Amino acid sequence: MDTIQAMNCAAKKERRFIAIVAYKGTNFWGWQRQMNQESVQGFFEKALEDLFRTPVTVSASGRTDRGVHGLGQVVVFNAYTSLSPEEIRMALNSRLRPDIYLRNVAWTEDDFHPRFLAIKKTYRYLISEQPSPFLEGFAWMIGKRLNLAAMKKAGQYIVGVHDFSSFQGALRKAKDPVREVYAVSVKRESFTLDPLVQIIAIEVTGSGFLYKMMRTIAGTLVDVGRGKFPPETMAEIIEGRDRSCASSTAPGHALYLKKVFYETALDTD
Amino acid sequence: MDTIQAMNCAAKKERRFIAIVAYKGTNFWGWQRQMNQESVQGFFEKALEDLFRTPVTVSASGRTDRGVHGLGQVVVFNAYTSLSPEEIRMALNSRLRPDIYLRNVAWTEDDFHPRFLAIKKTYRYLISEQPSPFLEGFAWMIGKRLNLAAMKKAGQYIVGVHDFSSFQGALRKAKDPVREVYAVSVKRESFTLDPLVQIIAIEVTGSGFLYKMMRTIAGTLVDVGRGKFPPETMAEIIEGRDRSCASSTAPGHALYLKKVFYETALDTD
Repeated sequence: MDTIQAMNCAAKKERRFIAIVAYKGTNFWGWQRQMNQESVQGFFEKALEDLFRTPVTVSASGRTDRGVHGLGQVVVFNAYTSLSPEEIRMALNSRLRPDIYLRNVAWTEDDFHPRFLAIKKTYRYLISEQPSPFLEGFAWMIGKRLNLAAMKKAGQYIVGVHDFSSFQGALRKAKDPVREVYAVSVKRESFTLDPLVQIIAIEVTGSGFLYKMMRTIAGTLVDVGRGKFPPETMAEIIEGRDRSCASSTAPGHALYLKKVFYETALDTD
Repeated sequence: MDTIQAMNCAAKKERRFIAIVAYKGTNFWGWQRQMNQESVQGFFEKALEDLFRTPVTVSASGRTDRGVHGLGQVVVFNAYTSLSPEEIRMALNSRLRPDIYLRNVAWTEDDFHPRFLAIKKTYRYLISEQPSPFLEGFAWMIGKRLNLAAMKKAGQYIVGVHDFSSFQGALRKAKDPVREVYAVSVKRESFTLDPLVQIIAIEVTGSGFLYKMMRTIAGTLVDVGRGKFPPETMAEIIEGRDRSCASSTAPGHALYLKKVFYETALDTD
């Protein structure tokens, strides 16, 4: 062992890293590693194993379903390395497909956990009233003008501490379906890839989200926008505490995990 | 032949139709029909043949290269039919892949020609300073901060009547390389699919565009943005009247044919 190698070995120690990850969900069966299916976690761990020559398991702030996109997924992993966070970021990005991109990597505390310590999350849901070849896999194309004012009004009923059972997917029921929603925004945005089309972006920030909660909120707000029922009905839907009260679950390919918040600023901020 | 059928036959006459077509260029070998390659024109004509049960040839305002997108391509075709323009639009959209979309169809004059009568065109070119999984195939990702003010300034040198030989692709040289550019805009835009990323959109409106002219303008403006040479050098590049004066041709997948203009308002407007 020569001197430089000895120095490298001496410099190596186990460190915990945090990464902010963006991914286009289109060609994955969701975040979570699965047998015989391509997942974001699977590709991420393969890139880590390729870099560090040892299997590495990652933890994320939460799973995302098939087709769902990540803008600011938070992921941690441990590695025994002398590489700097920025060197790791570049090395991983060069090993990943272009539909997964690490925006930022930093050292973090040994006991930081991206799921247990998350205090709130923001999800984004995109709707288009007109079809566009540039929105396939990215937005829910309704093909009909929606009443934005009614959707805005309906969204405000969700704000606050509520039992969100009416918006919970049947497959995975939480023991405690009470969550706090801090903010709901519904607005039209321009779309730079196809300026003839406008997007309706729904953003919901909450203490946590039940399984399929954001997609059921989106489906219900779209029904308000279509005029199927007035905004005020949202109060009754929440009150009903039963999944059959709300509208159909909106498609996953229009959902984006935008940001995960923690008590203290992230090391990546 | 029953009465309704007879009436339908009587109502049928040859009409000329104009269509405004949007397409995502990613999976096509350009606009123009080609042997053994998938083209937008090829799929469009196949949908027409399927609808009218006879081969139909279409004319467009111009070709677009492989990977180039259409936002407002103008296409005409003749059909012997009693179907209304809106019925034709819906019937064709249901026969086309989701990456081609007819925004509007109308009757037009028998002698309307989308290429010969075009008086100006607007092209759009999208650049991103940061990578994003949502921009693959849609924007040129530079991975470096660009000097927007310098690019804006450089763009203004292009405005006016010029010999654009310096910006002309070597493969197809125009006999007369003089064109008039009416307007150039360079600005940052937000990107609704990935709000952490901003896009630089270059728009050029001109009387006509030489082969690869817009992509060479984009490549040269990006070099100004990178600080390779000052905005004032644009004057010398134009003056040089030689392709070697300008920068490399920017990639096709970030180019969009936005709008084609005619002397009178289009029937689709």
